[in-house]
Amino acid sequence: MSILKGACLIGQSGGPSAVLNASALGCIEAALKSDNITRVYGAAHGIKGVLDDRLYDMNLEDPAELKLMMHTPASVLGTCRYKLQDFLVDDWEYKRILEVFKQYNIRYFFYNGGNDSMDTCSKISSFLSQNNYECRVIGIPKTIDNDLAHTDHCPGYGSAAKYIATSCMEIYRDAMVYDTGSITVLEIMGRNAGWLTAASAIATYKGIGPDLIYLPEIAFDMADFISDINRVYEQKGDVLVAVSEGIKDKIGTYITSYFADDTKEKDVFGHAKLGGLAANLANYTNAKIQAKVRGIEFGLIQRCAAHVASETDVNEAYMAGADAFKAAESGETDKMVAFVRGPGPEYTCHTTLVDLVEVANVEKKIPIEWINEAGNGMLQPFIDYALPLIQGESQMPIEDGLPRFAHLKKICTR
Amino acid sequence: MSILKGACLIGQSGGPSAVLNASALGCIEAALKSDNITRVYGAAHGIKGVLDDRLYDMNLEDPAELKLMMHTPASVLGTCRYKLQDFLVDDWEYKRILEVFKQYNIRYFFYNGGNDSMDTCSKISSFLSQNNYECRVIGIPKTIDNDLAHTDHCPGYGSAAKYIATSCMEIYRDAMVYDTGSITVLEIMGRNAGWLTAASAIATYKGIGPDLIYLPEIAFDMADFISDINRVYEQKGDVLVAVSEGIKDKIGTYITSYFADDTKEKDVFGHAKLGGLAANLANYTNAKIQAKVRGIEFGLIQRCAAHVASETDVNEAYMAGADAFKAAESGETDKMVAFVRGPGPEYTCHTTLVDLVEVANVEKKIPIEWINEAGNGMLQPFIDYALPLIQGESQMPIEDGLPRFAHLKKICTR
Repeated sequence: MSILKGACLIGQSGGPSAVLNASALGCIEAALKSDNITRVYGAAHGIKGVLDDRLYDMNLEDPAELKLMMHTPASVLGTCRYKLQDFLVDDWEYKRILEVFKQYNIRYFFYNGGNDSMDTCSKISSFLSQNNYECRVIGIPKTIDNDLAHTDHCPGYGSAAKYIATSCMEIYRDAMVYDTGSITVLEIMGRNAGWLTAASAIATYKGIGPDLIYLPEIAFDMADFISDINRVYEQKGDVLVAVSEGIKDKIGTYITSYFADDTKEKDVFGHAKLGGLAANLANYTNAKIQAKVRGIEFGLIQRCAAHVASETDVNEAYMAGADAFKAAESGETDKMVAFVRGPGPEYTCHTTLVDLVEVANVEKKIPIEWINEAGNGMLQPFIDYALPLIQGESQMPIEDGLPRFAHLKKICTR
Repeated sequence: MSILKGACLIGQSGGPSAVLNASALGCIEAALKSDNITRVYGAAHGIKGVLDDRLYDMNLEDPAELKLMMHTPASVLGTCRYKLQDFLVDDWEYKRILEVFKQYNIRYFFYNGGNDSMDTCSKISSFLSQNNYECRVIGIPKTIDNDLAHTDHCPGYGSAAKYIATSCMEIYRDAMVYDTGSITVLEIMGRNAGWLTAASAIATYKGIGPDLIYLPEIAFDMADFISDINRVYEQKGDVLVAVSEGIKDKIGTYITSYFADDTKEKDVFGHAKLGGLAANLANYTNAKIQAKVRGIEFGLIQRCAAHVASETDVNEAYMAGADAFKAAESGETDKMVAFVRGPGPEYTCHTTLVDLVEVANVEKKIPIEWINEAGNGMLQPFIDYALPLIQGESQMPIEDGLPRFAHLKKICTR
C-alpha cells in the first residue's frame, strides 16, 4: 500500500436515488476515520461545485446527523447533469478542476453516479495524471436504471425495484375492486434498458402483478399491444400492463413520439425527454377496446421512495462507498467499484474494481433470454436475479410519524 | 340488550382505501365469535352482490388468512359504485334485497363506505323496517377523502395522509437536487374537500413540503397561482406546489375543465371525472415562468399504499368494524359508527353512533379558519388535527421482501 496523504472530495451526480446518500456516507465515514485524510469535502452539485469552488466541509458536520444519510433519499450535497467537454478540444474546465484540487490538496476524489458520471470521472482522472497531479479517482456506481456495465447490479436499483413491485401489488388490488372490468397502463422509468419495468414482474411472480410487460429491449408493436390486452381482458376482465417509458418500435422510434405534436426537447446528454406515455397509451387503448382504461405514471417517486427502500440495497450502497475509499487508500485509481454476486443458491455480494473507461457511456440491457417469447413478460431467470436485491425492509428513523432525514449544515469552505 | 339471532352480512362499497379491509376484519372477527350469529357472509362487490345473490361464506375462511386483511389494501370482497333507486319511485331492488336477506336469514347488515354508501345503507334500513323485516343495519365509515359529517375523521384518511406527507418529503428532496431551479406541481385527490391535499402541509410543517397548497375550499385564481409561484421561485429557486384535483374558480368551475377540449364524463353519482390537472397546470406555468416545470399526479397509489399505512388508522379502522358489530348486537340499527376525539393534549379516539340520514350525502369540508389568509397554505390547527392520525408504522407481514396480502377462498354460497 503506497501512502498518500491529503484531502478527500466526494461528489454526487445525475438522477437521485433512494440510496445515493448511503453510498456517500460509506465513503465519508471511512474517510473521516482515516489517518491519511486531512479533510473531507463534499462538492455542491457534483462537478459544478468543483468548478465553482463550492465545497462543503464534512468534518464540521455532526456525525449523528451524517448517519441519517443512510436513509435520506435524493442527494444531500446536490447533483448535476453537467457534461465536461473533451479536454483535447477545450481543457479550461479541467484546468479549473486541477486548480481547485491543488488549492485544497485534494488527493482522493470519489464521484457517485451513472454511466455519464463515470465518463466525467474517467476524463478527470486522465487529465490529472497527464498533468502529473497525484490523485486517486474512484467511481461509485449509482443508478436506479441498473444499466451500468461490468457490475452485477447498481446501488439504487433494488430500492426502486422494491417500490415498483410493492406498488404494482397494491395497484393491482386497487384497480380490480369493481366488477366492471378495467385496463390499467403503468408507465415505469427506463430510457433504454428495461430493468425497472421488469421489476414489476416480481409482483406478477407473487401472483398479483402486471399481466403484460413491455420493455425497450423488444421492438414494440401497437397492434400486438392492443391484441395482447384484448386477449387478457376477454379472459380475466381486468388487465394490468406495465410499459417502460422508453419502448421503441422496430425502427427505433420512441412510442411516446407517436403522440408528440412537436419535436421533443433533449437533455444535455442528447437523450430525448420522455413522459406522458401512460396517458396516451390509455387513450389509444380506450379507442380500440370498449373498457374502462386508465394510465398511471409512477414518476419521480419511484427513484426517491426511501420509505420502502430495500435493506439489501441500502447496505450494499454503503458498502460501495466504503469500499471505494478502501480501494483508493490502498493505491487504486481510475476504477469504479462494481458488485459481484457470489456463487451458490444463497445470495451474497462483494465488490471488485473495474476500469472507468470500460463503464463510461456503456448501457447494459436485459438479456433477451430473460424475456418471454411473445416479448410481453419476464422469465424465471430475471426473478432469480432481481428477487434477492429487494430483500429486507430498511428501518428509516421516524419522527412524528414521518421520515427523519439528515439535515446537514453544509458549511462552505469559502 | 335485545337478543336477535341470525346471519350477518358485510359489504364494502365505493373507492378502496388502505384500511377498508381492516374495518371488515373487525366486524367479521366479532361476528364469527358471537353466539347470536349463525353465519357470516361477505357480499361480492357490495350491494351488487346482494342483488345478484353472490355472497361469500366467511365461516369457511382460514382465520389466519382473514387476519391478513388487517394489512391488505383495497377490498378483498370487491366494492361497487352502484346507486340504488329511490324506493318510492321503483322498489324492485329493495324487494330483491329483502328476498336475499330472507333467504339467508340475514339479521345484521354492515355496509362499509363513504357518504354515498351511507345513503344506500339508510335506504335499505328504511325499506326493511317499513316491511317489518327485523334487521340491524349499521354503516362503517370509510373514505380517504375524510369528508363524512359527524365524525372527527374517517378510517382511510390517516394512511392516505401519511402516504401523501411522506411522498411530499421524498419528492421535495428529489426535485431540488439540481441547482438549476425547478417548479413541481403535485396533484392530490379530493373532489370537493381538501383534506388529502392539506395533508401535504404536514410535510411542510416538518420543513420539507409544499411551499403552496391549493384546496377546493378556496376559490382558485390562475393569476394569483402564477404570481404566488413566481414569488417563491424568485426567493428560493425551487417551488413545490400541491393542488387538489377539485380546485374550482370563484364561480365554481373546475380548473381542470379549463384544459378540457370536450365535455367531461360523469360518474354514476353525477360527479365530474377529474384528472390530468398537474400536467396541464405545469404546462400553463411553463408558458408563464421561464423555469423547469413538472407535473406529478399521485394517482391511485395514494389510496392503496398499505406499505406506508398509519398504524393509528389501521387500528381505528379495525375498531370501527368491531364496534359496529358490538352496537348492532346490543340492539342499535340505522346508525353509522363515528369517531370522537377525546379532550386533552394526548390524542385518544373512541367511537359513537350517529343517525345514517345525518351522514348520507353530506360532505364535510375543511374549516376555513384552518387555511391561511392568502388561501395557499394551512395553519397550525390543521396540523394539530392531522398529525395524530398518521402516527405509527403499520407492520405489514412481508414475504420475499414484498407484502403478504390475504388470499381468501371466497366460496360462494350457491
